[in-house]
Amino acid sequence: MSRKIIILIFAILSLNCFAQNNSKEDSITLKKLYNTSLLNGKSYEWLDYLSNQIGGRLSGSLNAQKAVEWGEKELKELGIDKVWLQPVMVPKWTRGVTEYAYIETEPGVTTNVPVCALGGSVPTSIGGIKAQVIEVKGLDELKKIGIDKIKGKIVFYNRPMQADVIETFMAYGGCVDQRYSGAAEAAKFGAIGVIVRSMNLRLDDYPHTGAMSYGDLKDTDKIPAAAISTKGANLLSSMLKLDPNVKFHINMNCRTWKDVQSYNVIGEITGSEFPKEYMVVGGHLDSWDLGDGSHDDGAGIVQSMEVLRLFKEIGYKPKRSIRVVFFMNEENGLRGGKKYAQVAKDKGENHVFALESDSGGFTPRGFSLDCNADNFEQVQSWKPLFEPYLIHFFAKGGSGADIGPLKKEGMVLAGLRPDSQRYFDYHHAKNDTFDAVNKRELELGAATMASFMYLFDKYGVK
Amino acid sequence: MSRKIIILIFAILSLNCFAQNNSKEDSITLKKLYNTSLLNGKSYEWLDYLSNQIGGRLSGSLNAQKAVEWGEKELKELGIDKVWLQPVMVPKWTRGVTEYAYIETEPGVTTNVPVCALGGSVPTSIGGIKAQVIEVKGLDELKKIGIDKIKGKIVFYNRPMQADVIETFMAYGGCVDQRYSGAAEAAKFGAIGVIVRSMNLRLDDYPHTGAMSYGDLKDTDKIPAAAISTKGANLLSSMLKLDPNVKFHINMNCRTWKDVQSYNVIGEITGSEFPKEYMVVGGHLDSWDLGDGSHDDGAGIVQSMEVLRLFKEIGYKPKRSIRVVFFMNEENGLRGGKKYAQVAKDKGENHVFALESDSGGFTPRGFSLDCNADNFEQVQSWKPLFEPYLIHFFAKGGSGADIGPLKKEGMVLAGLRPDSQRYFDYHHAKNDTFDAVNKRELELGAATMASFMYLFDKYGVK
Repeated sequence: MSRKIIILIFAILSLNCFAQNNSKEDSITLKKLYNTSLLNGKSYEWLDYLSNQIGGRLSGSLNAQKAVEWGEKELKELGIDKVWLQPVMVPKWTRGVTEYAYIETEPGVTTNVPVCALGGSVPTSIGGIKAQVIEVKGLDELKKIGIDKIKGKIVFYNRPMQADVIETFMAYGGCVDQRYSGAAEAAKFGAIGVIVRSMNLRLDDYPHTGAMSYGDLKDTDKIPAAAISTKGANLLSSMLKLDPNVKFHINMNCRTWKDVQSYNVIGEITGSEFPKEYMVVGGHLDSWDLGDGSHDDGAGIVQSMEVLRLFKEIGYKPKRSIRVVFFMNEENGLRGGKKYAQVAKDKGENHVFALESDSGGFTPRGFSLDCNADNFEQVQSWKPLFEPYLIHFFAKGGSGADIGPLKKEGMVLAGLRPDSQRYFDYHHAKNDTFDAVNKRELELGAATMASFMYLFDKYGVK
Repeated sequence: MSRKIIILIFAILSLNCFAQNNSKEDSITLKKLYNTSLLNGKSYEWLDYLSNQIGGRLSGSLNAQKAVEWGEKELKELGIDKVWLQPVMVPKWTRGVTEYAYIETEPGVTTNVPVCALGGSVPTSIGGIKAQVIEVKGLDELKKIGIDKIKGKIVFYNRPMQADVIETFMAYGGCVDQRYSGAAEAAKFGAIGVIVRSMNLRLDDYPHTGAMSYGDLKDTDKIPAAAISTKGANLLSSMLKLDPNVKFHINMNCRTWKDVQSYNVIGEITGSEFPKEYMVVGGHLDSWDLGDGSHDDGAGIVQSMEVLRLFKEIGYKPKRSIRVVFFMNEENGLRGGKKYAQVAKDKGENHVFALESDSGGFTPRGFSLDCNADNFEQVQSWKPLFEPYLIHFFAKGGSGADIGPLKKEGMVLAGLRPDSQRYFDYHHAKNDTFDAVNKRELELGAATMASFMYLFDKYGVK
């Protein structure tokens, strides 16, 4: 055997041995992270506070400010290297007195239906609006129906989420245009208001709010927009089939104010080897105002904070600088995400990795990744490490809205993918509350995120 | 190129083409099964009836008989080839008047705690029993403590389910000996009763019942056994730390009666090519009496029935005879499972496959399999077909209690494995009710089962 071959064999054996030791060490670290989260976790206790002591925290509200102060305080108590607030101006929209609506089948004969204003909507005129309803399944239909039949009426968008789409986020993507652009489009055809079927796969009585946009409409052309519960939508649709002349009355006094000062909350563990390489983990601190935002996105906030705590608990000192970011204003503006990325760019900070949890606190299944082939291959090689935790899903796809603006060549953007089947039962609705979150599922998510970050910190971004 | 090589290449290409066509056909069939279950499923409606119109259905109860009659009626309405009842004698145990218990810190100063009799327990004497408590973490400790310190006392088994075990069924397996054998063991040391920490990972106020056995104890040596809620257990444990002399009072008037007549409910689609090869799909029709048994195992019943309905709906005619079996008495005797296997053996029926759903109606993750290497390999080759449905888990392991007695060489036994994180929040407790089941999750499970059976029917058991 030639010396070259002997050296080669020796090199291969060493590498193999190194890989085995590394893999064993990684297994042990992951086990520690999961055990600590499940046996001695803080995520659930934090979520209890954020959900029950603070509650819904729409951007620009007093509650959002309380959440900022709470986040800063909790991060400081973790004893990490730095904690600061990053100023950002955010929109302020208020719901006002609770909305109401009814279907009127003949003068004075009415049936109440559950509605809520969409975020950003203008109010109705005082006392509400009442008009005939024209039901459509999507934006395209408006043109076919034509201005003559739409003018002066309320457009009712009633295309449901598709139940046969397995990934509920895909089903959501398939109808959210009705909510986001429905009013702007209907206004062009002379509608005086729109109601949109809630983005919910269940039949129930909760209207689901969410962001909408008037595009470039003039203020005077804007028309009020509300969501109606899925059961309300079915009722209205069936009544319209019996009598196309039934009227719909809705009263809303929501309002948009001047932008106000708010903050992203940021904490950092400075890296021991590569302090100038930044890895972000985060969620969004704001929520809609109807529930207490436990799944969207209280879960992501407390899981992100737990990642840093778990590192400290198990004594892991990251090589790279790990930042937890509680982004402000994901729901109706994304101002926090944009601001964070802008400041990072202005300062020339080298962000190599970002992970967001904003898909609910359900049993984690894996991650979706926006990254290059080398990093994706590296992630695939970690699959065996995650098998004991039933984490199987590592796929190309979107990451998270708040971290999206950070995107650049060579960077890894990742989103935690929990089981999504129940997410839209709660999303943006009054029942998105603490009791809808299971402690273990939340804790498993936090440990899964910490494990993923640990591996990227240890092996680096390719 | 020799003629042999040309033939070989042609053969390989044909096989490849055949495999591709098959795989395409399978993809289409699976899509149909999932779509039908999600868009036009019956499982949820059936579960609503079984849970809300019938309710808890402990073996030997009037409700169990109502469930038998309902099951037979529904199967007949499916229009399948055969439906029949298979007689089986089952135990009859009744809870009697609701149990109660309290901790007494000084005479007359009491704190109520939630308890329930374990299934099969003898009652307390009239008016209840009251005694000092000795807390242990398991059966082993009794010997160390010794008869002198146990005699005349109530033994309190307080080993919790391990939160850091990812698979909750494993954590359950790690402490259920306390419930099953705790009374038999404690009686040998002179205890006058036992209370067992509920097999529940959450802290709440629900006591969880379940089967227990006195082994070969004489009737006169049997002592009453009850479960205490996890919060009750923590309270009692903390009180014992403050004062080891606190007393525990418990009153139960449960009773075991003579065995009574009941039935397995069976439906069959006779196979078109191999009618003498039987494939079973089932769950158990009985439940505990505290909740309405929606997860355990109403879900398994309606999913199994849905498998046959889905085959009919999509026009799939099985090659083999497919039987749905609603087993009676899984919870406290397994008489139905044993009877079915015995009759199959007596009749020389060739059972090649059995699938049970008895792990709750949660999002399906895959299957555990008890089968030979060839069949396991075949299952692995189907993984890509299941990927669009996020079904990843195919592992060796247990299948289901009711189908266990069918086990024989060359047969495939399988168990549906749903996400298990929340299962023990509800298992055998008052909160195992219809509202704890999510429609989509239930329907996804039914479609996953149907898909698996379709593939085994089409390609056969190796």
